[in-house]
Amino acid sequence: MPKRQTIREGGNVLLYLNKKRSYLVKAEKGKSFHTHKGYIQIDDIIGKKYGTRLLSSIDVEFVALKPALRDFIFKAQRKTQIMYPKDIALMVMYSGIGPGSHVVEAGTGAGALTTALAFYIKPRGCVYSYEIRPEFQAIAHKNLEKAQVEEYVELKGKDITLGIDERNVDAVVLDLATPWQVIPHAYLALRGSGSIVSFSPTIDQVVKTVEALEESGFVDLGTFECIMRGMQVARGKTRPQTIMTGHTGYVTYARKAFQKESHLI
Amino acid sequence: MPKRQTIREGGNVLLYLNKKRSYLVKAEKGKSFHTHKGYIQIDDIIGKKYGTRLLSSIDVEFVALKPALRDFIFKAQRKTQIMYPKDIALMVMYSGIGPGSHVVEAGTGAGALTTALAFYIKPRGCVYSYEIRPEFQAIAHKNLEKAQVEEYVELKGKDITLGIDERNVDAVVLDLATPWQVIPHAYLALRGSGSIVSFSPTIDQVVKTVEALEESGFVDLGTFECIMRGMQVARGKTRPQTIMTGHTGYVTYARKAFQKESHLI
Amino acid sequence: MPKRQTIREGGNVLLYLNKKRSYLVKAEKGKSFHTHKGYIQIDDIIGKKYGTRLLSSIDVEFVALKPALRDFIFKAQRKTQIMYPKDIALMVMYSGIGPGSHVVEAGTGAGALTTALAFYIKPRGCVYSYEIRPEFQAIAHKNLEKAQVEEYVELKGKDITLGIDERNVDAVVLDLATPWQVIPHAYLALRGSGSIVSFSPTIDQVVKTVEALEESGFVDLGTFECIMRGMQVARGKTRPQTIMTGHTGYVTYARKAFQKESHLI
Amino acid sequence: MPKRQTIREGGNVLLYLNKKRSYLVKAEKGKSFHTHKGYIQIDDIIGKKYGTRLLSSIDVEFVALKPALRDFIFKAQRKTQIMYPKDIALMVMYSGIGPGSHVVEAGTGAGALTTALAFYIKPRGCVYSYEIRPEFQAIAHKNLEKAQVEEYVELKGKDITLGIDERNVDAVVLDLATPWQVIPHAYLALRGSGSIVSFSPTIDQVVKTVEALEESGFVDLGTFECIMRGMQVARGKTRPQTIMTGHTGYVTYARKAFQKESHLI
Repeated sequence: MPKRQTIREGGNVLLYLNKKRSYLVKAEKGKSFHTHKGYIQIDDIIGKKYGTRLLSSIDVEFVALKPALRDFIFKAQRKTQIMYPKDIALMVMYSGIGPGSHVVEAGTGAGALTTALAFYIKPRGCVYSYEIRPEFQAIAHKNLEKAQVEEYVELKGKDITLGIDERNVDAVVLDLATPWQVIPHAYLALRGSGSIVSFSPTIDQVVKTVEALEESGFVDLGTFECIMRGMQVARGKTRPQTIMTGHTGYVTYARKAFQKESHLI
Repeated sequence: MPKRQTIREGGNVLLYLNKKRSYLVKAEKGKSFHTHKGYIQIDDIIGKKYGTRLLSSIDVEFVALKPALRDFIFKAQRKTQIMYPKDIALMVMYSGIGPGSHVVEAGTGAGALTTALAFYIKPRGCVYSYEIRPEFQAIAHKNLEKAQVEEYVELKGKDITLGIDERNVDAVVLDLATPWQVIPHAYLALRGSGSIVSFSPTIDQVVKTVEALEESGFVDLGTFECIMRGMQVARGKTRPQTIMTGHTGYVTYARKAFQKESHLI
Repeated sequence: MPKRQTIREGGNVLLYLNKKRSYLVKAEKGKSFHTHKGYIQIDDIIGKKYGTRLLSSIDVEFVALKPALRDFIFKAQRKTQIMYPKDIALMVMYSGIGPGSHVVEAGTGAGALTTALAFYIKPRGCVYSYEIRPEFQAIAHKNLEKAQVEEYVELKGKDITLGIDERNVDAVVLDLATPWQVIPHAYLALRGSGSIVSFSPTIDQVVKTVEALEESGFVDLGTFECIMRGMQVARGKTRPQTIMTGHTGYVTYARKAFQKESHLI
Repeated sequence: MPKRQTIREGGNVLLYLNKKRSYLVKAEKGKSFHTHKGYIQIDDIIGKKYGTRLLSSIDVEFVALKPALRDFIFKAQRKTQIMYPKDIALMVMYSGIGPGSHVVEAGTGAGALTTALAFYIKPRGCVYSYEIRPEFQAIAHKNLEKAQVEEYVELKGKDITLGIDERNVDAVVLDLATPWQVIPHAYLALRGSGSIVSFSPTIDQVVKTVEALEESGFVDLGTFECIMRGMQVARGKTRPQTIMTGHTGYVTYARKAFQKESHLI
């Protein structure tokens, strides 16, 4: 197992204080990182193992964790609505994406979903990510680089509602305002039996998307939402969280079937 | 994109009828597959593209889909409680597992979760899966083979509550009755900052698990459940499903931090 | 406290076997009641106290409970979709209905909601319940009689979408397919500050209802659904129910404000 | 219908601005009420009808609503955790309480639940409410007076865990930290077939309560929670609320059956 377990110069570290506060920082020599719980001398952690406990300048304990995918998702620099790990996880599962998959995505946004797709299709798959707003492409590129998955992504400055360049892709993943406009293009881009998944906050978007999928010849259609409910666990005081995120969005999924005619040849 | 898009002899096909009925079959010459909606001549579909629509002997349409991960999960031959794709998806996300990960799992059970883990750690990772009941190992092996991921899994006929052989693994994934008994072993097996995730149906299991994690030096602890709510989508009649699976289980996750002393050397 | 605590001839008894099985029966002399757990001699229970434990002919224990409102709701003889106690409870709360209230209701249906409204407005209020299908009126009358609240209800065989006869009522309660058609009539029927509540299974109904309320001059509008989640409670095995009713319907509520002009006089 | 529809001196008015802001005020001569949206001359509203729209000093519209039960619940002056109308509504439904019921309640707290119970048992029932903390009794009395239901309540400065004075009551309603300590007393206080309902935030409280109920001879036991999910309704943008109250507490209910021996006499 040759994977890096030691924090080296230039690497990412998640300085974990508690459930509410953690900081994704780059381990750069000579730097110190300031928090409301004192500062941390970055020099001191270079060369240490991931998982090491540290004391800040005022003796508060931090842990130097190795950032995982969900940290890169939560910490993605952004100008847009966050996409939650829970929804990304289910979109990945319901799209059938895995190592080696070729995936079209739109819109790139800040690249949080792109990062996750790239993470899972490694090392031989590819993500083709469409985004018409150049300012987002720059942010996404930075976020992909930080998560070290930029080599698996082709950022495309094109309007996906006008068409998709790729063909025979395994999955199309949509997180944009008008997914129904993309569905005929997605049908053309997908291989037979390939998956489409789309994320939308409102019911009206879902209805239009489902109608477009039905018209385009997709099968195995479904829509769900994932309500993630945190628990406060402590002997004698266990209970669900008082305040929760009640809704992020709906996930709609389907698979491409060829038109009736197409299988006769 | 060299992936197989054509149904070949010996390959898997998902004969999809509707949301409620689909059949995972092997494309064997000379075989026919019988359903309550007529039979399908398997010879006819060999050589066709995945995604092809077929008519059964009584002219009912089926689609020959390429099975995706979630199909292998749902169709896993089993003797145990099913683990749902939603919970597997979130366990994968919260464990940080991806291509190349080395993962310890217990218990193997019928191998549905094992199949998913193997699918995501391909092509260079490994799943070490513990199971003491030999009859399950046989079922799991069959299910892994069907999903073509058996080469990424080492099935171990050992009792994980007595210890874990591996060291420096990226994640430990538990789906067994007494996860708290495994936690000290998991701590030893994990690399620094490595993840543990555990799935339990009851709150009492969760409380004991969380206590064991806290005692063993894990940080970033959390417990949640994922309530997946299907939507019936149709213009003018859209609504959540009437009957739903209200509870499957709780997911508890944490990451390994070294003990205070361990980072001084 | 002069209320009846003894089962008398002709009175209602809930023969309770377990959470899944209970029977609402009339205590008639000479009758016996047959179940898959043996029969019960009704003569034996007349004169006994409510709350008495009984043995059936095959020595299975039943309890002779005094039926409560929710029993009459669950046991209402019906031809329609059930309305659940949870939704009725919230409609009563959000309509402000209580002893003395004057309430217009539509449609009567099998009278389950009517029974509850009548129960809460006793002894000096009144429920005016509209229903155009005569076959339902007969069922509703029977159910109201059984719950001994028929004297508080005026069953009206009129089409409420054509108008409401009453004026200055405290609340209008709707459970019908096209509530938006009733809203202008409800506005006229309500006193200032009076409440309307409407129950609808689909989102499309809710949207049309809310739009009609906004157009008609209602304020304090809101829509919610109540998801009732049963718990299986047993030390060491506590967990939410596996299968649950995921959706019954949405409750929309609002209060009447006078038009801008109307308060100048 | 002789009920008051006009705002008179000394009466309660709910000055409604929007879903987030409304104010429960007393209509006193010469007073003005100040808000961040200007002030309202109370003299101007005395004699107006409930439901009248008003303009504040800076021309912002308010509506003078007649406070309903849920307003008194939400606006109850308090020192304790709020009890939500949703939970109160379901406790009322599952306890079978209605006009004429005799109810024992503990603890009184700020009297929000007491207010609701008193509202529903009017005009001939009675609520016996136990509270050992004198400072709460004073607050509760004020809140009951404001809601004009104080005549239906007997506030008792006693420790209910030591015993209940009343006998043959229809229901016992508990909202306190250790409900299991009250259950043997509740059994004695209830008439046969009478109901107990208990509200508890944590699962551990629920387990102890259910065990005590089973030991004391109660039947028809159940526990549930009510998750109330608000909807944002607007054509083309309809969706559940983003942030919601995920958990308030569990409701446990049961009914008294006599011990095996007790029905032989």
